[in-house]
Amino acid sequence: MNETQLLEVSQKLKSIIRSVPNFPKEGIVFRDITTLLKDKEAFKLAVDTFYQKYKDMKIDKVVSVESRGFIFGSVLAYLLGAGFVPIRKPGKLPAEKIRQEYQLEYGTDAMEVHIDAIQPGDKVLVHDDLLATGGTVSAACKLIERLGGEVVGICFLIELSFLNGRERLKNYDIFSIVKYNSEQEL
Amino acid sequence: MNETQLLEVSQKLKSIIRSVPNFPKEGIVFRDITTLLKDKEAFKLAVDTFYQKYKDMKIDKVVSVESRGFIFGSVLAYLLGAGFVPIRKPGKLPAEKIRQEYQLEYGTDAMEVHIDAIQPGDKVLVHDDLLATGGTVSAACKLIERLGGEVVGICFLIELSFLNGRERLKNYDIFSIVKYNSEQEL
Repeated sequence: MNETQLLEVSQKLKSIIRSVPNFPKEGIVFRDITTLLKDKEAFKLAVDTFYQKYKDMKIDKVVSVESRGFIFGSVLAYLLGAGFVPIRKPGKLPAEKIRQEYQLEYGTDAMEVHIDAIQPGDKVLVHDDLLATGGTVSAACKLIERLGGEVVGICFLIELSFLNGRERLKNYDIFSIVKYNSEQEL
Repeated sequence: MNETQLLEVSQKLKSIIRSVPNFPKEGIVFRDITTLLKDKEAFKLAVDTFYQKYKDMKIDKVVSVESRGFIFGSVLAYLLGAGFVPIRKPGKLPAEKIRQEYQLEYGTDAMEVHIDAIQPGDKVLVHDDLLATGGTVSAACKLIERLGGEVVGICFLIELSFLNGRERLKNYDIFSIVKYNSEQEL
């Protein structure tokens, strides 16, 4: 897919994503992907756009963060012939695991992954639905690398460009389909 | 797929699911599907088994319950050419929605779906990873029917047969791949 085609896909999908002002709080515009997911053609277009980007990269595992990340992450794993690895909130995974803490706007949170989820040398594609400040996905990459995996790409459906998440992830190859350049863009 | 083939698939996948005794509490054996998800062949086998079952049913929407249900639900939606609808915990969905309460072992919980997620007459496939008492999926079906959708099938990767969830869902067509006949079965 060339840049013109990608721009067309981006504009089409952006027109289908619902922007909800003042959710979850005053001043925030929530980018609601449920309107895209329920539209079979838009959903397929988004999935196929990711797939075209990564189909020749011999991905071993697709890793996604709970819970919206699971939606595209698992489809990509299936199409790429890869395994799927969920990263989950603390206390959800039952077997031996490692934990990574990360900063929130106020305070910290943590996520966990099973130690047998990634083999050393695995080529890993990371997916999350939305790139904001990059804190969540940065922590996910640390978990993968602690297990010896190689993060060969990170993809997002939506990128909030004005939050500069790419800066925090500058050592990685980042791909996003739909970009918003300001909080208030509708 | 005939019954003999399905039994073979079931046995193979059961051998890959990890059983973790005493998680999340004493006496419970947790059925951990992460060992299946990370195994690209097992993951594909499970997805393809669901797909074969529903491929000719002209499904309009696949509905899944947060969050493990999203994993197979979204792949099925893609392969069936359907839209994907997430049912979420209260407070997560930003637009106009309806809520359904359901019983837990102690107390009640609730789930929500956007009112524009299902169109009247939509043929809906419901997926969750595990059938226990059936309370969660029963509530999901109520939400779908309140919006005018028709639940044409419900599928699970795992069924805990000894909890009799099918009894609660007896008005629906139920399909599960792997069955456990007792809590302690390993």
